[in-house]
Amino acid sequence: MVNELFQPVWWDASTGALALIDQRKLPGELRTVTYTSVAETVVAIRTMQVRGAPAIGCAAAYAMALAAAASTSPARTDLLADLAAAKQMLDDARPTAINLSWATARVLAHLTTLPATADLRAAALAEAHAILREDQAMCRAIGAHGAALIPASGQVLTHCNAGGLATSGYGTALAPIRTAHERGRAIHVLVDETRPLLQGARLTAWELQRVGIDCTLIADNMAASMMRAGRVDCVIVGADRVAANGDVANKIGTYGVALLARAHNIPFYVAIPSSTIDLHIADGDAIPIELRDADELTMLAGVRTAPIGVHVANPAFDITPHDLITAIITEHGIVRAPYAAGLRAAVR
Amino acid sequence: MVNELFQPVWWDASTGALALIDQRKLPGELRTVTYTSVAETVVAIRTMQVRGAPAIGCAAAYAMALAAAASTSPARTDLLADLAAAKQMLDDARPTAINLSWATARVLAHLTTLPATADLRAAALAEAHAILREDQAMCRAIGAHGAALIPASGQVLTHCNAGGLATSGYGTALAPIRTAHERGRAIHVLVDETRPLLQGARLTAWELQRVGIDCTLIADNMAASMMRAGRVDCVIVGADRVAANGDVANKIGTYGVALLARAHNIPFYVAIPSSTIDLHIADGDAIPIELRDADELTMLAGVRTAPIGVHVANPAFDITPHDLITAIITEHGIVRAPYAAGLRAAVR
Repeated sequence: MVNELFQPVWWDASTGALALIDQRKLPGELRTVTYTSVAETVVAIRTMQVRGAPAIGCAAAYAMALAAAASTSPARTDLLADLAAAKQMLDDARPTAINLSWATARVLAHLTTLPATADLRAAALAEAHAILREDQAMCRAIGAHGAALIPASGQVLTHCNAGGLATSGYGTALAPIRTAHERGRAIHVLVDETRPLLQGARLTAWELQRVGIDCTLIADNMAASMMRAGRVDCVIVGADRVAANGDVANKIGTYGVALLARAHNIPFYVAIPSSTIDLHIADGDAIPIELRDADELTMLAGVRTAPIGVHVANPAFDITPHDLITAIITEHGIVRAPYAAGLRAAVR
Repeated sequence: MVNELFQPVWWDASTGALALIDQRKLPGELRTVTYTSVAETVVAIRTMQVRGAPAIGCAAAYAMALAAAASTSPARTDLLADLAAAKQMLDDARPTAINLSWATARVLAHLTTLPATADLRAAALAEAHAILREDQAMCRAIGAHGAALIPASGQVLTHCNAGGLATSGYGTALAPIRTAHERGRAIHVLVDETRPLLQGARLTAWELQRVGIDCTLIADNMAASMMRAGRVDCVIVGADRVAANGDVANKIGTYGVALLARAHNIPFYVAIPSSTIDLHIADGDAIPIELRDADELTMLAGVRTAPIGVHVANPAFDITPHDLITAIITEHGIVRAPYAAGLRAAVR
């Protein structure tokens, strides 16, 4: 499925399997993996073979279809119970991105509305397909809305990867950049490498290079001096969860970039599908933050880069308070402060 | 010479050679290398076998002694000309740290003051020894002055390595931390890993671990959320050059840390020997910033982590404007804004 969309998740109809690009291997190797069970999908999400909030939502939706296909329960209620168990396993794979539980809940809720005679296994797959299709339309809509926000000088900084690989293809943060580029605008993207897992260096630079958008890779700690040098006109990032008040959980380092943008009077935009908004969470402090293994910081390519036994903090995400955010770009349009009303309206 | 000082530069009297800890090999391997020529020393400085402004000053001073020993010129003026040529080679090895040209100029100036009958070769070595000894005393004095600035709660963040390995031993930014620790204070250090070359992970964490100071390694992009979480009471960094107005060139990422500290009302200190002050440079914009190879960002331990052909920006240093600096700690005491007068007084 690798085309100009960089779609990282799809259904392999010939084998009845979930297919993924193994994103841990990029950019060196473009490898496809297929999975036929929920347990395998959980491992793929946890180990970040598939990552990015919308993309793991799509993968989890297909895993619900896998769970339905695998269930041997003849009774409808037993099948739904099997799916509820699968949902729990999937939701627990990673804690921060809301899209995971959003997608599994949507598949399950859809099945419960169907008449007794319906083929729930086919319906689960159809709903996963619908989620993927809608995600693709969502990315295009974010691109259209967001492209207008990119200043004429076209110098954009992004952190992590909220591109095609993080979604169903095309991206959230990268969507306005791609749309502006497709409209003939001159764009240059500064790509934060994004430690520790280097999603910027490995994935964002790779995507931008393949579609012919000029970009320059920097270490995360260079963003401030690039801003001071006038090389950043706006920042666009994605998000893993947005609280009701507009506080944003996104890849670790996002909060720092937002503060630096504020210090240099540079607009800071967050691009998300409305499925990333969690109205049940009042503010960012209530968003669970995943802590990942120390090895992600102390080992590089199998080589130890820090002394044995050193303490490590490795939060995968941080919280950017809403007052540092210039606007939130959704598939339904641009939301600006005060965010509470706008975000409520965006969750249709 | 590896003791609790972590002295990275010394004179191997048995062979008449400059000895260095090869800092590229740490923390995995503690390897000593010896050099007997200026050309070898230039390579060692350029490839960062020895790094840190005061340490490369000491290494360059000993390289001047090597140049004097190697010179076959019988006439005093010819020997001095050979040394001037050696100075030029050494000064050009890296552009940003002023200590390099400061040390070579000091050795050369000393020799020109000596009577015609003096043994210039012995005098060059003696002056290099004096520079090293003074650097060691300087570190201790910075420790004594700076320890008083560490808040009672003792949570310090540092960037890069301005420890023993960056000096003649003991350090500049790490000196107040070590002195406070030796006085029985409870200290915890957050160590920025410091991309791209990971001096924080490889060197600072290693030094702190070996002297028993609690520390936690973080990716550079985690500093902001650590500050927001109340885990940083002050920041202390070193510097490679300080302009007459107090603007500071230091390892890339320092400016961002200073902005984040300001946003969280956290004191930001710079610890330097007075030899790092360059009164000939009016402000930070005039300090030359070294640009290093793209490979430092695109390769890790021999593995490519970014797509082939991607553009890379890799400035090794950035400029922190003086108005973000709470105080500058020198061996002569604490300098506060307005910096011009205090820095002039510190250069005795």
